[in-house]
Amino acid sequence: MLFERIVSKGLAHYSYLVGDKDSAVAIDPRRDFEIYIEKAASEGMKIARILETHRNEDYFVGSSALAQATGAEIWHADDQWEYEYGRAAEDGQRWKIGRLEIEALHTPGHTPGSMSYLLRDADGISWILFSGDALFAGDVGRTDLLGRDRAIEMAGLLYESIFSRLFPLGDDVIVCPAHGAGSVCGESIADRLWTAIGIERKHNPRLQVRNKDEFVSNQTKTQPEKPPYFNMMEKVNLEGEPLMERLPTPNPLSPQKFEALAAGAQVLDTRTELGFSAAHVPGSQFIWADGLASFAGWYLSYDQPILLLTEGNNPEEVVRILIRERYDNIAGYLSGGMLAWHMSGKDSRSLKTVTVQEFCRAIDQSHEAAVLDVRSDEELLRNGRISGAQHIHVTQIPERHKEVSRDQEVYIFCGSGMRSTIAASYLEARGWENLAVILGGLSGWKSVKCPVVR
Amino acid sequence: MLFERIVSKGLAHYSYLVGDKDSAVAIDPRRDFEIYIEKAASEGMKIARILETHRNEDYFVGSSALAQATGAEIWHADDQWEYEYGRAAEDGQRWKIGRLEIEALHTPGHTPGSMSYLLRDADGISWILFSGDALFAGDVGRTDLLGRDRAIEMAGLLYESIFSRLFPLGDDVIVCPAHGAGSVCGESIADRLWTAIGIERKHNPRLQVRNKDEFVSNQTKTQPEKPPYFNMMEKVNLEGEPLMERLPTPNPLSPQKFEALAAGAQVLDTRTELGFSAAHVPGSQFIWADGLASFAGWYLSYDQPILLLTEGNNPEEVVRILIRERYDNIAGYLSGGMLAWHMSGKDSRSLKTVTVQEFCRAIDQSHEAAVLDVRSDEELLRNGRISGAQHIHVTQIPERHKEVSRDQEVYIFCGSGMRSTIAASYLEARGWENLAVILGGLSGWKSVKCPVVR
Amino acid sequence: MLFERIVSKGLAHYSYLVGDKDSAVAIDPRRDFEIYIEKAASEGMKIARILETHRNEDYFVGSSALAQATGAEIWHADDQWEYEYGRAAEDGQRWKIGRLEIEALHTPGHTPGSMSYLLRDADGISWILFSGDALFAGDVGRTDLLGRDRAIEMAGLLYESIFSRLFPLGDDVIVCPAHGAGSVCGESIADRLWTAIGIERKHNPRLQVRNKDEFVSNQTKTQPEKPPYFNMMEKVNLEGEPLMERLPTPNPLSPQKFEALAAGAQVLDTRTELGFSAAHVPGSQFIWADGLASFAGWYLSYDQPILLLTEGNNPEEVVRILIRERYDNIAGYLSGGMLAWHMSGKDSRSLKTVTVQEFCRAIDQSHEAAVLDVRSDEELLRNGRISGAQHIHVTQIPERHKEVSRDQEVYIFCGSGMRSTIAASYLEARGWENLAVILGGLSGWKSVKCPVVR
Amino acid sequence: MLFERIVSKGLAHYSYLVGDKDSAVAIDPRRDFEIYIEKAASEGMKIARILETHRNEDYFVGSSALAQATGAEIWHADDQWEYEYGRAAEDGQRWKIGRLEIEALHTPGHTPGSMSYLLRDADGISWILFSGDALFAGDVGRTDLLGRDRAIEMAGLLYESIFSRLFPLGDDVIVCPAHGAGSVCGESIADRLWTAIGIERKHNPRLQVRNKDEFVSNQTKTQPEKPPYFNMMEKVNLEGEPLMERLPTPNPLSPQKFEALAAGAQVLDTRTELGFSAAHVPGSQFIWADGLASFAGWYLSYDQPILLLTEGNNPEEVVRILIRERYDNIAGYLSGGMLAWHMSGKDSRSLKTVTVQEFCRAIDQSHEAAVLDVRSDEELLRNGRISGAQHIHVTQIPERHKEVSRDQEVYIFCGSGMRSTIAASYLEARGWENLAVILGGLSGWKSVKCPVVR
Repeated sequence: MLFERIVSKGLAHYSYLVGDKDSAVAIDPRRDFEIYIEKAASEGMKIARILETHRNEDYFVGSSALAQATGAEIWHADDQWEYEYGRAAEDGQRWKIGRLEIEALHTPGHTPGSMSYLLRDADGISWILFSGDALFAGDVGRTDLLGRDRAIEMAGLLYESIFSRLFPLGDDVIVCPAHGAGSVCGESIADRLWTAIGIERKHNPRLQVRNKDEFVSNQTKTQPEKPPYFNMMEKVNLEGEPLMERLPTPNPLSPQKFEALAAGAQVLDTRTELGFSAAHVPGSQFIWADGLASFAGWYLSYDQPILLLTEGNNPEEVVRILIRERYDNIAGYLSGGMLAWHMSGKDSRSLKTVTVQEFCRAIDQSHEAAVLDVRSDEELLRNGRISGAQHIHVTQIPERHKEVSRDQEVYIFCGSGMRSTIAASYLEARGWENLAVILGGLSGWKSVKCPVVR
Repeated sequence: MLFERIVSKGLAHYSYLVGDKDSAVAIDPRRDFEIYIEKAASEGMKIARILETHRNEDYFVGSSALAQATGAEIWHADDQWEYEYGRAAEDGQRWKIGRLEIEALHTPGHTPGSMSYLLRDADGISWILFSGDALFAGDVGRTDLLGRDRAIEMAGLLYESIFSRLFPLGDDVIVCPAHGAGSVCGESIADRLWTAIGIERKHNPRLQVRNKDEFVSNQTKTQPEKPPYFNMMEKVNLEGEPLMERLPTPNPLSPQKFEALAAGAQVLDTRTELGFSAAHVPGSQFIWADGLASFAGWYLSYDQPILLLTEGNNPEEVVRILIRERYDNIAGYLSGGMLAWHMSGKDSRSLKTVTVQEFCRAIDQSHEAAVLDVRSDEELLRNGRISGAQHIHVTQIPERHKEVSRDQEVYIFCGSGMRSTIAASYLEARGWENLAVILGGLSGWKSVKCPVVR
Repeated sequence: MLFERIVSKGLAHYSYLVGDKDSAVAIDPRRDFEIYIEKAASEGMKIARILETHRNEDYFVGSSALAQATGAEIWHADDQWEYEYGRAAEDGQRWKIGRLEIEALHTPGHTPGSMSYLLRDADGISWILFSGDALFAGDVGRTDLLGRDRAIEMAGLLYESIFSRLFPLGDDVIVCPAHGAGSVCGESIADRLWTAIGIERKHNPRLQVRNKDEFVSNQTKTQPEKPPYFNMMEKVNLEGEPLMERLPTPNPLSPQKFEALAAGAQVLDTRTELGFSAAHVPGSQFIWADGLASFAGWYLSYDQPILLLTEGNNPEEVVRILIRERYDNIAGYLSGGMLAWHMSGKDSRSLKTVTVQEFCRAIDQSHEAAVLDVRSDEELLRNGRISGAQHIHVTQIPERHKEVSRDQEVYIFCGSGMRSTIAASYLEARGWENLAVILGGLSGWKSVKCPVVR
Repeated sequence: MLFERIVSKGLAHYSYLVGDKDSAVAIDPRRDFEIYIEKAASEGMKIARILETHRNEDYFVGSSALAQATGAEIWHADDQWEYEYGRAAEDGQRWKIGRLEIEALHTPGHTPGSMSYLLRDADGISWILFSGDALFAGDVGRTDLLGRDRAIEMAGLLYESIFSRLFPLGDDVIVCPAHGAGSVCGESIADRLWTAIGIERKHNPRLQVRNKDEFVSNQTKTQPEKPPYFNMMEKVNLEGEPLMERLPTPNPLSPQKFEALAAGAQVLDTRTELGFSAAHVPGSQFIWADGLASFAGWYLSYDQPILLLTEGNNPEEVVRILIRERYDNIAGYLSGGMLAWHMSGKDSRSLKTVTVQEFCRAIDQSHEAAVLDVRSDEELLRNGRISGAQHIHVTQIPERHKEVSRDQEVYIFCGSGMRSTIAASYLEARGWENLAVILGGLSGWKSVKCPVVR
């Protein structure tokens, strides 16, 4: 028997590969799909089927490509949409995988046609539920993706799916969802890699409600953000583009070529927040590599080529993450990085950073300074507000950046200093000059005696 | 600076990757080309050019595919042929690679337009000669590929190329040829991974001649064999087929499916000679994995699909070797190998093997037994003939197998027992019944007291 | 958070590594421990603690070595024994791992002091139970290891541990046991990699009893075998030997040296059953690599050096498995394998193999042939007996081999032909001459029309 | 046949592994020796001998450890010293490696007993010379290590070794030295990975002399520096310390523990020059990872424990380099790096960096600024001096740092900005406050119009 969870970091996306005897099933495969083939092949298994839990909106599903590479058949959920490939799975449909069996359960709510898949073991025991974006550890799927109008309807559907369809499976069914902690698909997914129906029934905060109305009301109270790239994903996931056999290898570029191409491109710098602060190509956008899955969709356009600036000559991991969100237009990377840039006499910019000690002294002395807090609403609630700070979530900076003062020194704050640097790089590229990033962010600040008001 | 020799075992083919600063050159790249891109990328280098030393006949050149994947320009030799891609390199043409320089030297003889390439280092010193199939360690390229008619002409050209063009470069130029010991492209290449002009001038047996006539006479005396697949390679190497981005992953097949497909396919068994002897699928052809590059071209047809039978579920290395000779039509492999075959109740055949001790006793007792020696002419000369044995080189078995006796027990002999098993499997599949392979072959036999007559 | 299950194949042993923030806990680590350090280090975590669930008897625990390499503290169970290292964990004891917490639960039965460990997540939810050898998927730990005298007492303790201590944790607690399907520590562990309390409560065949008496009665009805090496393991696991930093690299030996050393050694051949059958070094013991963890303990002595004969020059994986059972005295391996053996003129033996078709014909013709069935009692019950066959389980062959007829041809049978070859090689080395292994075993045989009586 | 060059980057040290049939020889193995065993084992070869070309002074030779791990015999050169292990090789001594042969040639000069080793191939042809530190590509070994007094004598010996012993081997012998470009053992080694006797005879600048006197005179003209750690290496290389089986895995440390230990330790920061400049632990010494082999010996003490600060949680490569120079006392590394440091509210320091454009503007405006140039004498000669700059080579900073002005702003210059940051971190830790590193160094500066006087 083969059971593998394939984790795509950043997205906190979990896909699964389950096999027995000589055949295997991939559930919600990602676009850089070679890992499924390799793992199945090493067990002598052929990927016979691909199951989708729903039309994903946060990454580019690899079903179509994997099917082209392996000949597997695709079963997708959400049959009310016009998929251009595969067939629609139906509630109650069953497939054999060697001695195992998988059954489709219609669990609408996140999307109208969301499917969960129940895996029975060789003895016919209900063993694992692949719950897609219906049920997470400590959270449930968002129900707002079809718009405000249908949010109440969708929340109601999700309530029924979970309470009437999943709970009856029994407390002891193990639950393997499509996302873990850190995903944009659930606001507060708990840090359990897998969970059980009973654990969620008893402890999931979203499910501790008296009735459906309370669940729906809670569900529509908060409004998680929807990154602009979701629209692109929803579109391409219906189309199922042609096979990308091999991860593209971007061109190494000399500083001269890089500079020449930069005019018509967006420069993405994925080094550390400190390396970026010390020196960067003017106009470049900072997003650290592990933050790329979460923030690329808010900051990068699909219309302009991307130029990469990484540490070392090894952009592969970054390319992999971009490709998953279908940023295919990667024009190259700066060979030799910033050292090559400086050694060929190119000018660079730096970004001011301050430690919490320095910040504490600075705000003590200067009442003119502005503080910009780019944390999420939820973090503000949980960890406290900064007195007098302007609050714009890092994902809203591109839309609302004009609200940030150009006249004062602006100290930018997040939990650690990473997201602050994203925001600062965006503002700097658009002309802001008096910016400073707080190193260590709120985490660091708590250790010094400076005012935080909850 | 980057210098890499990429060895394709079996073929004993050497390709090279040379780079400096941000660009690199690949010389005679193979079809499974990802290795060049990976090595160049890890140094931040772009493959800017591909140089071919000649229209290769023993493997499918990867130039066209690598160029499609990287945008590199291709320079081929042998411009009198009608290449459908790239441009013809000219004698004296020079290219920069960072601080290095490469110059094309026209060295005809193996083919009419063969090129060698001289690499000068950053100080302009003549450093390394990529000699293609013109000059090997201890041997020279064969000059018979254009046919008997032109063999004298070609041998004369090769003499001039080596004596008038390469020797003047100086004894101290290091020589990196396109093949090492074990290649079918040189009969007796020495076991030196690289050599020097002076070493070859003084020690290469082919070059210890008084004059051109003696060289030509020697060169046309022996007639190395030309595997049937050479014709296919010569053809496709002019065409430069579309990109194969990723090594194909053959389908795992159940014993039932394997048996069903076997009817219209050629079954290739690449396990050990012992595993094959103990039990194999009836009708299958044995060639051990490391012998595949040398013998596939004599035994496998391009017209029928190939079914693989390997040890374990890991046919990748075998596929890689087949793909290099453009055996693209691989229908799958037996998942679970012979164990799965037997466990589903399928019948198998065994092949008799005898140790040299047993053989010694057998020939003592039975004067009826025939001995078939499948070693090469050269081995017979070097290591002695077996008294009374029939001699057919392993590569000639498909053409001459009818000469082998069907009435007697036939003991098959080679150097070790490996090639004997190739021949035996071929004969067995065509109805021969009294075959026995000598384990250890002539090497083993020398240790017992049995008659070998030189 | 870090959660890793480390699987030692063959033994079907599961150890675990759990970490959060900067510290990690290893549970029941194996002797080749580098994997724990590497995985923890890649997350920036230090292995702060090692927890043992019980004094293991089926492999050499790596606690002592891992503690020496990392400085971790060791907590062992079974404090009534005289451990020479670490400290005894106590029921109810708790340890923090970052935001997580682990609690020791005394669950005696398999051994008197067996501990389970309950992991609570960052929210304090009871999440995962590391159940050691108390509770498996579909089975429970054996309770006979302290001898017949105490078997009833121990079975009673296990009943209380499971019913009174583990069931109350709740159906939804996920269970991670110390062994999976294929282990000698549970007769019929199900093929679920992990399970849940509720799944076991409802479906585990051992737990579907009316009361404690029935449980105890069932538990003492069957008598699983106890391999001789268990005694060695129990002893060394108390002592906790000095650190073996690096997996030993055995010496490659020429055929001459191999033969010379073989006189005072036990030759272990881990190739395929077919390769072994075709030719092997006289006197050698066959156990295929993946069967080594299960069968080495029955066939290999601790008193003689081991000489390895593997396919290829890559004995690492075999050494790793032997080391886990503390077969440290590995004198070398045959460089170049059987090919080198035969090429230096050494004699070898072969073992007769027959397909099920051949066997069917043979038993039809000859009523003289004996059949030896080396499957387990359980398999006989489940899959049927062979009419007239002598039955000795493969593990009992060393003890009972004299019961096997020397006068008749003996056809040896197991499920597939693998274990038959173990038995045959043992008998052959002790002088039996008329042996034949049935390829495909009972699995293959079922497909032909020959008499099987249930 | 097996031929491998093992490159230790940074040191630009080349060791070699040569094997044939079942035995291999390692030449000048490094301390982290697992690579030799792995490569030999994968070919089924045993490392039978270890040859040293001389008592190395720039790294800790792995002979003793490798011998303990493999049982190989050690042959060292320089027999006038009191080695505590192995035996002394003698001029003319020969060893067989399968069909190959190696002969020791006494080639004193770098040290009194330096040996070269000539490899003859299977045909007896003089093929490869392992020239140790006698002859490099484009350079010769230094002859000053025994002190000023004996420098003339040693230079004379080296002349004889090269002209009378090596040149007669023939122009076509390929030369494999112990170091490549970038080593501290040769001032200006050319960027050829291997060379030939003839290439060096004709092109090596050191060998284009009329007679011995001119060679000796040139050789004693310049005085390459001798890092303080050479003394340690010379001592331990005679002793041959006990086996270090496994590369040590340093402890991950929380910011609190790191800070606590830092008081009695030297903090080594191996991140990029930019990351360090933006923020670093106060008092820490910067040396980038690839510069560590060259500069650790000048900046790190053997008496204090080392605390590492790397990018990410992956100090392995840094540990490997330190271990090669016997910095064994590594107390741990900061888990989570600077991000963790700042998030726990720890204070950090930054170092001012300026681009060449900024520097150009700055020196235009302020005539008060000092310029410190830390390049080598040779670079000054080759690439020009900076008008008015103070010159102290980076390796001399620890000895001469008091010469640097504390009163002025000091702009620090090297070729790229990397070595400047080493110097700046040293000065900053000792109280200098007005320091600025020029990004891109002289390479960058040449592209702007600022005065450079040759």
